[in-house]
Amino acid sequence: MIIEHPYLIFLGDVPDALAAKTGLGIVDWRPEWCLGQFRLDGCQADANIPELSIAEAKEKGVKTMVVGAVNAGGVLPDHWVKPIVEALDAGLNVATGLHSRLSSIPEIKAAAEKSGAKLHDVRFSDERFATGKGDKRPGKRLLAVGTDCSVGKKYTALALEREMRERGMDADFRATGQTGVFISGRGVAIDAVVADFISGAVEWISPAADPNHWDLIEGQGSLFHPSFAGVSLGLLHGAQPDAFVVCHEPTRTTMRGVKHPLPSIQEVIDMTIALGSRTNPGIKCTGIAVNTAKLGEDEARSMLADLAREYGVPATDPIRFGVTELVDALADI
Amino acid sequence: MIIEHPYLIFLGDVPDALAAKTGLGIVDWRPEWCLGQFRLDGCQADANIPELSIAEAKEKGVKTMVVGAVNAGGVLPDHWVKPIVEALDAGLNVATGLHSRLSSIPEIKAAAEKSGAKLHDVRFSDERFATGKGDKRPGKRLLAVGTDCSVGKKYTALALEREMRERGMDADFRATGQTGVFISGRGVAIDAVVADFISGAVEWISPAADPNHWDLIEGQGSLFHPSFAGVSLGLLHGAQPDAFVVCHEPTRTTMRGVKHPLPSIQEVIDMTIALGSRTNPGIKCTGIAVNTAKLGEDEARSMLADLAREYGVPATDPIRFGVTELVDALADI
Repeated sequence: MIIEHPYLIFLGDVPDALAAKTGLGIVDWRPEWCLGQFRLDGCQADANIPELSIAEAKEKGVKTMVVGAVNAGGVLPDHWVKPIVEALDAGLNVATGLHSRLSSIPEIKAAAEKSGAKLHDVRFSDERFATGKGDKRPGKRLLAVGTDCSVGKKYTALALEREMRERGMDADFRATGQTGVFISGRGVAIDAVVADFISGAVEWISPAADPNHWDLIEGQGSLFHPSFAGVSLGLLHGAQPDAFVVCHEPTRTTMRGVKHPLPSIQEVIDMTIALGSRTNPGIKCTGIAVNTAKLGEDEARSMLADLAREYGVPATDPIRFGVTELVDALADI
Repeated sequence: MIIEHPYLIFLGDVPDALAAKTGLGIVDWRPEWCLGQFRLDGCQADANIPELSIAEAKEKGVKTMVVGAVNAGGVLPDHWVKPIVEALDAGLNVATGLHSRLSSIPEIKAAAEKSGAKLHDVRFSDERFATGKGDKRPGKRLLAVGTDCSVGKKYTALALEREMRERGMDADFRATGQTGVFISGRGVAIDAVVADFISGAVEWISPAADPNHWDLIEGQGSLFHPSFAGVSLGLLHGAQPDAFVVCHEPTRTTMRGVKHPLPSIQEVIDMTIALGSRTNPGIKCTGIAVNTAKLGEDEARSMLADLAREYGVPATDPIRFGVTELVDALADI
C-alpha cells in the first residue's frame, strides 16, 4: 500500500487532541508532507498548520486527504461523508484507519469510481502475502519492542530514522501500524493481516536491502501481552532484527487493557533473544527507550542512568533527550 | 460456526488418498456422522463407507455435504460446481475448507439463496471476536503442541477425547483447524483469524466450563516455526492450558516448508512453559506423543521408553499404542 503525499489532514469535529492523535502524529513526523488541515465547525483539535479548503488543497498539489481523527467506536460519522465525497470529487485520494471500509459507504464508493481517486483503508490489507520463510536476507534491521502496547515503539523507530538520516546513514522507518503507515506513506497494519501471514507480511514490509541499509521496524504489542503476543512474535520472526531497542513506560502498573503486570525489561530482553534467535542468531539488545513524560527531568535522567548501568546499553527518552547514543550503539553491527 | 451432521462426504475425482485426507480424517474420527460418500467418475480415494447419491443422502437424513477433498491449489474445480449445486438444490448445507468462498461462485450463491441451505467456508471466519483477556476461566484444558506442523496434534487431542469419554470423563475436543472443525462440527480455523484476535478467538473456542470439564485443544504450528509461531503463541495464550502434550515426528530433519532444523522436545517444553505461564502459571507438560509410522514396532517401543525415561512423562504413539498413560497423567490436575 503506497499512499501518495502531500497530505491534507482531515480532523473532523473531534472534541479533543487525543481523538486527533493520528493526524497530529503525521504532522509531527512529516511536516513537509502536510500542506494543511481541514476541520469542521467545532473541532477542538489543532495541528497548527494552515487551514485549507479542499479546493485550495487541490490547487497546492495535495494528493491525499488523510482522515487523521476518530470519533468514539472508530466508525465514520454520517456528517464526515460529505467532505470525503468532496475531496474525492476534487480528485484527491482519501485514506483512513477506520474499522470499516470507505468503499462500504455507497456515496463514497460512487464518488471514488467517478473521479478515479483511490480509497485507502489502512486497517484492511488487500495484499496477498506469502507465509514467512525465515531466510536471512541482506540489509540491517532494528526492531522496536516493548514491555507493553503504546510505550513509544513507533516514535523510537521514527526518532532513529531522523537521527540516522541526519548523519547521512541509509535508513528507512518501516511501518507496521496505521499511524506509521500514514507517516511513511506505505506499510501494513500488521494486526489486520490474517494470522497465517504475520511473519510473511513483515518479510514483505522489510525486504532484502543493501548490506549497509538499516530498516527501523515499528514493533507492535509485547511478547508478554495476553491479547497481542502472537502478533509480536510473528513480527519478531519476520523482522529478523540484528538489533532491538526495548521501549518502556515506567509509571504503568498493568498491561494495557488487561490485568496482567508488566514484564521487567530484563524479561523482555531475554525472551526477545530466545525467540528472535530463531531467524537471526546474532540478535542483540542495543538500547532502552523510556517514555519519561510523567517524570521530572532530574528523576528522568537519574532513572535512565540507572538503566544504562544495569543493562550495559544506552538508555534514553527519544523525545526528550534524543537518540544519539542509540544510534552510536549500532556502529559495530 | 456450527456445521450440522450427519454428513455426506464429497470426494470429487481426486487422484489419491492424500488429496482426500480431510474426508478420510472425518470418517476416521466420526464414522457415526458420515452416512456415505459421494464420488465422481475416476475418483481414486475411498473412505469405505456407502456410496450415496445426493437424493439418497437427503432421504437418509444427511444435513451437510462436506467437501473432503482438494485438488492442487486448493481451488474448486469447475466440474465440482454442479454436484455442489445439486446438493444445495436438495436442501443440504455445503461445507468446504477451500481458499475461496463458496459464495464467490454465482451458481452456488444463487442455489443456496434459493433453497435456504447454509454455505460453510471453514477457512474464513465471519465471527467477530474480542481481543484476548488472559483471565483464568474455570474448567481444565490440555493443549497439543508440536516440534513442527503436521506432527499429530489433532489426532492426539482426538485420541484423548475418545479415551476420556470411554472412561466417563467430561471432555471435548476443541478444533482450531479446518479438518478439526469438520470432525467436531464447530470451531474456528485459527490461522484464518485476523492477527489481533488470535488469543481472543481461542478464548471463544474454549469458554469457561465446569471445574472438572476437560477441553482438549488442537494446537497449530510450533513456537519455533518461522512462518507460524505467532499463531502458536496466540493459541497458547488463549488456551491457557493446565497441561500440554508435545507431539513429534522423529524422522523429520527440517521444519515443514522452511530450512530450519526442528527444535528438541526439551526446547519445546521449556518455551511452552516460559510463554504459557503468562496466562496459566500452573502449566505443565504431561506427556509426549510421537508419530512412529515410519519406524518398526521394536524401534518405536524402544524410542518411546527412552523418551519417557528422559522426560519423566508418558510417551506414546496415540494411533499405534493408545493414550491410556497420557490420560492417567491428568488424574492429579
